Amino acid sequence: MIIEYSPIGIVHSPFTEQKGTPIQPSKAKGARGTVEVFPEYAEALTDLDGFSHIYLLCHLHRSEGFKLKVVPYLDTVPRGLFATRAPRRPNPIGLSLVDLIEIERNVLTVKNIDMLDGTPVLDIKPYVDQFDERREVRTGWLARARAQRDRADDRFSS
Amino acid sequence: MIIEYSPIGIVHSPFTEQKGTPIQPSKAKGARGTVEVFPEYAEALTDLDGFSHIYLLCHLHRSEGFKLKVVPYLDTVPRGLFATRAPRRPNPIGLSLVDLIEIERNVLTVKNIDMLDGTPVLDIKPYVDQFDERREVRTGWLARARAQRDRADDRFSS
Repeated sequence: MIIEYSPIGIVHSPFTEQKGTPIQPSKAKGARGTVEVFPEYAEALTDLDGFSHIYLLCHLHRSEGFKLKVVPYLDTVPRGLFATRAPRRPNPIGLSLVDLIEIERNVLTVKNIDMLDGTPVLDIKPYVDQFDERREVRTGWLARARAQRDRADDRFSS
Repeated sequence: MIIEYSPIGIVHSPFTEQKGTPIQPSKAKGARGTVEVFPEYAEALTDLDGFSHIYLLCHLHRSEGFKLKVVPYLDTVPRGLFATRAPRRPNPIGLSLVDLIEIERNVLTVKNIDMLDGTPVLDIKPYVDQFDERREVRTGWLARARAQRDRADDRFSS
């Protein structure tokens, strides 16, 4: 079964190569960019300016191939691919939650962008905290890796 | 530009027609289902069981065509499609945040499912509250529609 999609827009960002690109919007330190929505879809942006945050679903066009286990950026041992947010995936769809700054006609200015320049956009959805937040969250290896990082090693002992 | 994806699995859910299917996982009142990941991807599920919640990115296969403005389930006036989570979209990708109950080999049991039975799954990502939550959220027409609903009308006045 083959599913065919066509981009509805394109990302313009300061990031032109993978090295140095933020690994998540929450690590993007305010990086700004724009999403150029193709004019035929501009009307679908009506009312979006009332939302502070939006999901961008993108085709990670520079992501080629995938492995079933990968060493994630935030850990040192291989993890199952679907337990990571690594960009090389069977279907390389990126999910980026960015701050929406303003909309001018068919161009969105967004903050905390983590996509490469030229990334095709497949869909835009509003972030709705009542739908999209969860309580009592467990984050497996990520929580353990974080606890590990936050514990001092012996580099300053004599 | 045509982008081609192939499903990595399929949803088995109690919902066989759109009418009556929950409009969001947060409205699904505990509905359970399974995600059958195709065996060739089973190894990519390693470590996922440490996460309490996962995103399922699905191809909404029963969604045909789209309009640039739609009347959303939670409102009474037309809104720009990209300011809604309506299923009929130029690229009908569903984003469902579900509770992960257990994993047995290549089958995930999940709770609060809002997808139709037979929906093809494109990707699975772990939910990570540090990446995926935002503070000071504005939700435009949705917040206004909710305020409206929560305000009494005159049905009980004499």
